[in-house]
Amino acid sequence: MWSDLESVGRVSSGGYRRFAWTAEDHTLREWFAGECARRGLDVTEDRVGNQWGWWWDGPGTVDEAVATGRKAVVTGSHLDSVPDGGAFDGPLGVVCALTAVDQLRAAGITPQVPVAVTNFVDEEGARFGIACAGSRVLTGQLDPATALALTDADGTSYADALRSAGRGPETFGPDPEMLRRVGAFVELHVEQGRALVDLDAPVAVASDIWPHGRWRFDFPGEANHAGTTRLEDRRDAMLGYADLVLGARQVATQRGCVATVGKVRVTPGGVNAIPSHVTGWLDARGADEEQVVAMVDELTAGARETGAAVTRESWTPTTRFDQRLSDRLRRVLDRDAEVSAPVLGTGAGHDAGILATAGIPSAMLFVRNPTGVSHSPAEHAEREDCLAGVAALTECLRDLTTGEVAAPTTAETQR
Amino acid sequence: MWSDLESVGRVSSGGYRRFAWTAEDHTLREWFAGECARRGLDVTEDRVGNQWGWWWDGPGTVDEAVATGRKAVVTGSHLDSVPDGGAFDGPLGVVCALTAVDQLRAAGITPQVPVAVTNFVDEEGARFGIACAGSRVLTGQLDPATALALTDADGTSYADALRSAGRGPETFGPDPEMLRRVGAFVELHVEQGRALVDLDAPVAVASDIWPHGRWRFDFPGEANHAGTTRLEDRRDAMLGYADLVLGARQVATQRGCVATVGKVRVTPGGVNAIPSHVTGWLDARGADEEQVVAMVDELTAGARETGAAVTRESWTPTTRFDQRLSDRLRRVLDRDAEVSAPVLGTGAGHDAGILATAGIPSAMLFVRNPTGVSHSPAEHAEREDCLAGVAALTECLRDLTTGEVAAPTTAETQR
Repeated sequence: MWSDLESVGRVSSGGYRRFAWTAEDHTLREWFAGECARRGLDVTEDRVGNQWGWWWDGPGTVDEAVATGRKAVVTGSHLDSVPDGGAFDGPLGVVCALTAVDQLRAAGITPQVPVAVTNFVDEEGARFGIACAGSRVLTGQLDPATALALTDADGTSYADALRSAGRGPETFGPDPEMLRRVGAFVELHVEQGRALVDLDAPVAVASDIWPHGRWRFDFPGEANHAGTTRLEDRRDAMLGYADLVLGARQVATQRGCVATVGKVRVTPGGVNAIPSHVTGWLDARGADEEQVVAMVDELTAGARETGAAVTRESWTPTTRFDQRLSDRLRRVLDRDAEVSAPVLGTGAGHDAGILATAGIPSAMLFVRNPTGVSHSPAEHAEREDCLAGVAALTECLRDLTTGEVAAPTTAETQR
Repeated sequence: MWSDLESVGRVSSGGYRRFAWTAEDHTLREWFAGECARRGLDVTEDRVGNQWGWWWDGPGTVDEAVATGRKAVVTGSHLDSVPDGGAFDGPLGVVCALTAVDQLRAAGITPQVPVAVTNFVDEEGARFGIACAGSRVLTGQLDPATALALTDADGTSYADALRSAGRGPETFGPDPEMLRRVGAFVELHVEQGRALVDLDAPVAVASDIWPHGRWRFDFPGEANHAGTTRLEDRRDAMLGYADLVLGARQVATQRGCVATVGKVRVTPGGVNAIPSHVTGWLDARGADEEQVVAMVDELTAGARETGAAVTRESWTPTTRFDQRLSDRLRRVLDRDAEVSAPVLGTGAGHDAGILATAGIPSAMLFVRNPTGVSHSPAEHAEREDCLAGVAALTECLRDLTTGEVAAPTTAETQR
């Protein structure tokens, strides 16, 4: 599977550009559907376009099983990428999920509840600016009309991108029927920091996702000639933007958060034209929600003094994964291990966090990344650690689908 | 003519995007050739692709006239634009040149030397980053191999852009034969500042062009995840860029120059990815050459401390227009006027400056711009001032082509 994926959307940096609803995304979706079909998994799509490959040998249909309390155990991740992203962020969770299904079958396991492998669309938000757009719309955390009106760098709307991909935006929206099927969701993901390197462990269980959000800062200016306009007559939108970049680093340091300005658009964007408009995007996160909010407030106040408009594009408070489900995964992982699997918080958002916020018992497994680098071609996972991830996910799925009580978390967890 | 041009390359801002060797540029070149043909002007192109429309009713050919000391009087400007540029910067000089030919003919004038109207290609450098590329290559001030290797934002090389426009890059290069024909060049241009508004005059004669240049600053970084990478582990290329933006304004203020950072490229450019590379372009100018050089040295030294690479993309020292030619134009303009035409220096580069540097007697006329704004949709010239520009240019051409000594500047001016 890895060699099939290797060339899709690869760019000269060695990284990947796999943006939602592009030709590359289409190739990846076809690949996913093909891998599911090859395993006899029944592929359905929800009203957003997220793909679900179902394994259920009965009795009855998946919906009949769900109706009798046998909610599905679901695993998977996403296949899209950030610009020049790494090979593992997303695809590792999908490939491990499909491989875990293979291993369960090879071991002769008959799940007592339906199992599904998922490919969530548009997790990175690289094209339209909102991360986890696929799971947010699915769960009602992002208004479909708002999503459809988003535009990419070329001015193409989300609605038009759907049309170009052969999909009707008319049916695009939340899908509570699909969500009702899900008893538990487990997402395996490459680690995006160095904790497992430092702890000398291949796999961890997630505890929570830091509060995080994105803000758009629009700085106004007045286009004019770079050679003939006196400094005192200028309204140069780039100056406010530069203040934001340096201010973000300073305030994040003071408040123990992280802040990043990684994307900017300049109008008109000519070397010899004073910028009439600069838009910068702030990504802000931290372990302490109050500090993150205070940091963004401080930067917003500073920018507004220069006439900037500040728009919150997304905000996700601290997300705690399901304690009972996470504990159960840890017990499974620790069963034959000498040392306990580490439990890690993370500064990265994930579809599993969106589902957890929607009240679905969700958990995550992290696989060691020797570089500690992510969202970059340098992102990596050793083959041995990937196989450790598959083994861990397989054991977790075996336990959740055949344990003394099938998918017990649905009953035990408060929704 | 103005209504024919109005819609070509117009964008939603109300400004224009007319970049060299694009479809828009092709339309403008066809328009120019058509206007020349309609007037019986013989259109030729030099080895770069600049267009020349010749008016010469003999005796003999243009080259025979030149061989006998009757060098041509040439006027014109350019038709390309900066991103979201105004309608007047460039086209006003071309339209006024064609109209001046009409007026001379209507007045029954028979020029004693050949006359040409020009459309210089790629004056703004908006696509490939080097301003006045057409006249620089023509005069040998820009190496054709260097020019052909330039790339635009999409990675298209200048050579490929020429091929796409149906031109062979093999013949692209300096054209001394064409330049030998030129006895004097007069470029009419919309003013790009507020001097004529303050002086209450419609037309001025240029004195000199400030020293000016462009520098590319490449800041290195390391791509990584915006949520999971500790501040102390980051190498964020955006921080050095922001320092450059604020430093440029500060040093320019101290040294009485102007400095602008109007264009930036970020890799990978995702909201949730730490920038691994940021390229910013500095445009620096000023009346005092020493101060401009010192300003750029200071900014370069600061950027290099952060690991940045700094590349000079272009540099033009102070350009003085031909004193005799300029004086002659002033005498013509002052003949029936109550007050003398103002003489203005400018911070903007022009093809006339490139030709002057190449030793061709060159001069400029400026037409009042009531907004003082240029390189922006707000750029403007009143119809009455445009007609004053046509009248001034017509009188200058009449004098230069029929005066007591035809095109005397060629003999009088040291080359």
